Amino acid sequence: MTIYILNPNSSQTVTDGIDRAVEPLRRATNVSIRCRTLHEGPPGIETQAHVDGVVAPLLDHCRALEETASAFVIACFSDPGLASLREQSNRPVFGIAESGILTAMTLGQRFGIIAILERSIPRHLRYVGAMGVTDRLAGDLPLNLTVAELSDRTATFERLKIVGSTLRKEKNADVLILGCAGMASLRSDLEAELKCPVVDPCEAAATMAVGRVAFAQLNKKEISE
Amino acid sequence: MTIYILNPNSSQTVTDGIDRAVEPLRRATNVSIRCRTLHEGPPGIETQAHVDGVVAPLLDHCRALEETASAFVIACFSDPGLASLREQSNRPVFGIAESGILTAMTLGQRFGIIAILERSIPRHLRYVGAMGVTDRLAGDLPLNLTVAELSDRTATFERLKIVGSTLRKEKNADVLILGCAGMASLRSDLEAELKCPVVDPCEAAATMAVGRVAFAQLNKKEISE
Amino acid sequence: MTIYILNPNSSQTVTDGIDRAVEPLRRATNVSIRCRTLHEGPPGIETQAHVDGVVAPLLDHCRALEETASAFVIACFSDPGLASLREQSNRPVFGIAESGILTAMTLGQRFGIIAILERSIPRHLRYVGAMGVTDRLAGDLPLNLTVAELSDRTATFERLKIVGSTLRKEKNADVLILGCAGMASLRSDLEAELKCPVVDPCEAAATMAVGRVAFAQLNKKEISE
Amino acid sequence: MTIYILNPNSSQTVTDGIDRAVEPLRRATNVSIRCRTLHEGPPGIETQAHVDGVVAPLLDHCRALEETASAFVIACFSDPGLASLREQSNRPVFGIAESGILTAMTLGQRFGIIAILERSIPRHLRYVGAMGVTDRLAGDLPLNLTVAELSDRTATFERLKIVGSTLRKEKNADVLILGCAGMASLRSDLEAELKCPVVDPCEAAATMAVGRVAFAQLNKKEISE
Amino acid sequence: MTIYILNPNSSQTVTDGIDRAVEPLRRATNVSIRCRTLHEGPPGIETQAHVDGVVAPLLDHCRALEETASAFVIACFSDPGLASLREQSNRPVFGIAESGILTAMTLGQRFGIIAILERSIPRHLRYVGAMGVTDRLAGDLPLNLTVAELSDRTATFERLKIVGSTLRKEKNADVLILGCAGMASLRSDLEAELKCPVVDPCEAAATMAVGRVAFAQLNKKEISE
Amino acid sequence: MTIYILNPNSSQTVTDGIDRAVEPLRRATNVSIRCRTLHEGPPGIETQAHVDGVVAPLLDHCRALEETASAFVIACFSDPGLASLREQSNRPVFGIAESGILTAMTLGQRFGIIAILERSIPRHLRYVGAMGVTDRLAGDLPLNLTVAELSDRTATFERLKIVGSTLRKEKNADVLILGCAGMASLRSDLEAELKCPVVDPCEAAATMAVGRVAFAQLNKKEISE
Repeated sequence: MTIYILNPNSSQTVTDGIDRAVEPLRRATNVSIRCRTLHEGPPGIETQAHVDGVVAPLLDHCRALEETASAFVIACFSDPGLASLREQSNRPVFGIAESGILTAMTLGQRFGIIAILERSIPRHLRYVGAMGVTDRLAGDLPLNLTVAELSDRTATFERLKIVGSTLRKEKNADVLILGCAGMASLRSDLEAELKCPVVDPCEAAATMAVGRVAFAQLNKKEISE
Repeated sequence: MTIYILNPNSSQTVTDGIDRAVEPLRRATNVSIRCRTLHEGPPGIETQAHVDGVVAPLLDHCRALEETASAFVIACFSDPGLASLREQSNRPVFGIAESGILTAMTLGQRFGIIAILERSIPRHLRYVGAMGVTDRLAGDLPLNLTVAELSDRTATFERLKIVGSTLRKEKNADVLILGCAGMASLRSDLEAELKCPVVDPCEAAATMAVGRVAFAQLNKKEISE
Repeated sequence: MTIYILNPNSSQTVTDGIDRAVEPLRRATNVSIRCRTLHEGPPGIETQAHVDGVVAPLLDHCRALEETASAFVIACFSDPGLASLREQSNRPVFGIAESGILTAMTLGQRFGIIAILERSIPRHLRYVGAMGVTDRLAGDLPLNLTVAELSDRTATFERLKIVGSTLRKEKNADVLILGCAGMASLRSDLEAELKCPVVDPCEAAATMAVGRVAFAQLNKKEISE
Repeated sequence: MTIYILNPNSSQTVTDGIDRAVEPLRRATNVSIRCRTLHEGPPGIETQAHVDGVVAPLLDHCRALEETASAFVIACFSDPGLASLREQSNRPVFGIAESGILTAMTLGQRFGIIAILERSIPRHLRYVGAMGVTDRLAGDLPLNLTVAELSDRTATFERLKIVGSTLRKEKNADVLILGCAGMASLRSDLEAELKCPVVDPCEAAATMAVGRVAFAQLNKKEISE
Repeated sequence: MTIYILNPNSSQTVTDGIDRAVEPLRRATNVSIRCRTLHEGPPGIETQAHVDGVVAPLLDHCRALEETASAFVIACFSDPGLASLREQSNRPVFGIAESGILTAMTLGQRFGIIAILERSIPRHLRYVGAMGVTDRLAGDLPLNLTVAELSDRTATFERLKIVGSTLRKEKNADVLILGCAGMASLRSDLEAELKCPVVDPCEAAATMAVGRVAFAQLNKKEISE
Repeated sequence: MTIYILNPNSSQTVTDGIDRAVEPLRRATNVSIRCRTLHEGPPGIETQAHVDGVVAPLLDHCRALEETASAFVIACFSDPGLASLREQSNRPVFGIAESGILTAMTLGQRFGIIAILERSIPRHLRYVGAMGVTDRLAGDLPLNLTVAELSDRTATFERLKIVGSTLRKEKNADVLILGCAGMASLRSDLEAELKCPVVDPCEAAATMAVGRVAFAQLNKKEISE
């Protein structure tokens, strides 16, 4: 039985980054964790249409994995299909945005979100509102980097420092969340640089999945029997 | 290095229950998890004075464990000393109420809390408010059982069913939280009975601690260097 | 130029009901309003997967209508694709849930939602949270009627009276919202029966669309030029 | 039957501006819309005493119009007498602040209000709180222009650009509301300049009134019969 | 210099009741406290039009008292003219609803309001929202007694017990507020009967006024000099 | 019978300052008010551990005073032991943070808190959340002064002006709260300087205590009899 972490965009580079990100958890547990790429997804999930559009293939993808799955993690900061997959699957399902935000709430009183693109921010705000945690949100500011620019690690880190610092100083955040599945490798450097905790949402969701699997909460089928 | 789960009341029975509760997580990981009783604590933490009073011995207890600790979990639903221990220790610190509530937020849209005593409820409400998640709270209702009555498993389960059912039907909760450290063994039966997810807060906190340890988020000392 | 009201389920009966519902607005204005059925949709939108699944065909459908559209209304109480269509289209876009809730806020201080099915309620609560208006929500209770039962007007009205009355008396709602696109014909009878305002969300959205078209707010293309 | 839009200050210039503002809606519908000046009102409604003071003459004014009215719109951004007129009249009643804010909530996730005077802002904040939508408010900043200065269109537009831009950039608003009844003629220019939607509250309220009249929701007398 | 407590309805009986209510504070301090009836007011403030309508005569009344006033208290649970009088006067101004609610927040975590009439409740809810304390409100339920019935002390007390008990048991209030200026004499009996604190709002406001006068916070004129 | 104001830190200088601060209230009433130093407390309450640590000696201290006490005021802006003392004592108990915040809510719509140290701010935010008044909080910013620096009145006032001005201009506060028990003597100068009301929390709590004592609300023992 395996925890499947699904990258709903088609970038194998991102999936590989997630895979490396969760390696420490794999080493700490005997739970099988595998990362998969949704090849039907777009190269990056940048619009609400991308978010909505990947749900159908993601559900199909997960339906095929159901029998071998112990849990699912949807590894995109818009949590596409989270509610749908929770309805469809009899396994625990986690979204990295939800898990990342909840985890940040154990590390500081006001969280800041570092978004990739400005146009994602209203979507984030709706999501934070749907979660009922707007009072804990310090702010949400964008890197405004293209996919090409994101592949430049140094340039990305420079922007992360600037945006993170603004969230800290002007918006009074005391914990930051990387609003993206593919930046885990920059997390600890950013923590050291900004001197505050930084949450990688994939790590947060994988952690919750491991626990849910270990404790074997009743699944929907068992509950309804 | 060990995750220490501290039962701040003096009841070894409660500590033993927590120990059994986290056994599945122990089996799933190679992380050392040990449960300890705060012998200076009261037999049960039933008043705000109990909550405040255990903080000093709890801090002392943890100071002595600091070097061998990878993380701390405070295993009382009032999260006594959570903020203090986070200040004192260079390790990750979790409270079971905080972790239990955040975990419930991944399992339903409106959580109900099953309190032991009515007088704890204003304290819970303040805490839910401090966490900024009042909009997700469906209700908080008491078992109103004494420590003696709590030791009767059948009677306790009967009350859990009644109170849980009221939270479900009258307060419209779709996930329940056991507002106590010592009821994990009743969780899955209650799930089956009430046909909705039930969160044991010790399981929730232990899970988060395992992940934090695995991912080795920078600690305070490293951040401030 | 036409305001297109899109019924994202495949039921022509529902579309016809919406068409009759907006007839008074058609008579009051010289704005063209046409109702269309999304034939790719399911017979009823009952699950989150239905909600997510209709977005892609709905976007395609609207793309083809863009040149002749003055505005779009998505006529399903889950507002499927609302944010996506707002991104895609250069025309004003309204969702009946959003418009219905906002309109109810002019008719009473605490609104109650009458849902068709219980499982839709967490989705509604997330949506009300995303809109930031949870403090105005009195409650959300289900009819729990199947599609077949919904076709029985008398039986449906009986359930509407019972659920509406519970929202009024136990949840202290002072305005009710029909959580469905196809019940406009029962609205005024329900108002008379329950002695409180009842909002049909299609009427609410169509109204807002007429005004937006009349006032010709700058569209996205004009703004970005 | 006529929708009466009441300007509760005594300035015919403002009334004429509102009249021009709603002309597009008049052209789109066959609903009669007439704008009226409350001659008993002050030249401008600038204080809470002005707000409270115009209620009595406004109620008298509307009582005399009741038989010929299909709806009333109170055209001052403090919505003076809104709740009172709703009690007194058997017709639908709208306030431009309420309608403007609700309409802005369909155009962006965080609305900014452009107030005329700084001292109005606490009043606005109380009103936004009473509406239960504080989580959607980005900020409220004043033009700080006198009535004389407001008559200088160019100077006013300059201030609108500066204040609107601050709301956009520093307060992260993505939709703006003109906090005044008399600025509709500047709306589309401001949209083009700031590249974001701008809501004229008179347009918003007039729209809602047209729909309410068209759909003939039961009035209070009919409900209570 | 005198603290003036203004009863904005024309009932001398109510004013006399307030006068007796604040007698203990008079005995405890050397501050002059005088109660006055606004003869221009209605016999009871029962509608929003009454609330708005008394503002103008109340402002006139207070203007005449300004030179001899150390503070003003508006003694009606709708706080009519509170913001207006704060603008007009250079003295501290308190409303009994505001003060009563704030005081209740020191006596329990969830306050219940006992309204006289059902139609006042939406007004109360707007006010609680404007104060930003909706999360502390357990519920607001009406006595539904006429003025004549209110004069029957026994009958009123019976209704207070029933409504208060419902707020306690069904709405989970742990402190109650008398939503009216004239019931102070029933407060302690109701406390004894319901076994929870009950706030008389006149007592609360008079208390705050005494302190403000004693500490001589700078007044508006001094601040602006 | 005496209102005891307890300074839970060991600084007699602070106690003396509080004593002078409440002198005007003493002159205005015939209520006995005495200030006491908790000699077991730390020199300053600067950490959460200090807050939790003073509760036990504070409870002991108050237990010994119970028979001669008419009320207790806990004079530290973290309100240490407030809930505990309310449980223990049969007398009214006030905390200066709670009272100061509630009082500020009568003086402006958005309050700013001036903290001594940055690390206190998350604690303040949790407390404001627990009170349910986050929507009224404009911001909380630190002086970042050491105890030694605080003893320099001129330097402290300079920092108060800078931080207060930032809260006013950047965070849009319209009333400020001194987040500390020992600054009452600077309050009116700061009001004059910043031209907005400034709340000293000791004055606020002492005021509420005087009223509670005067009106003799039933105490817990009487209620439970």
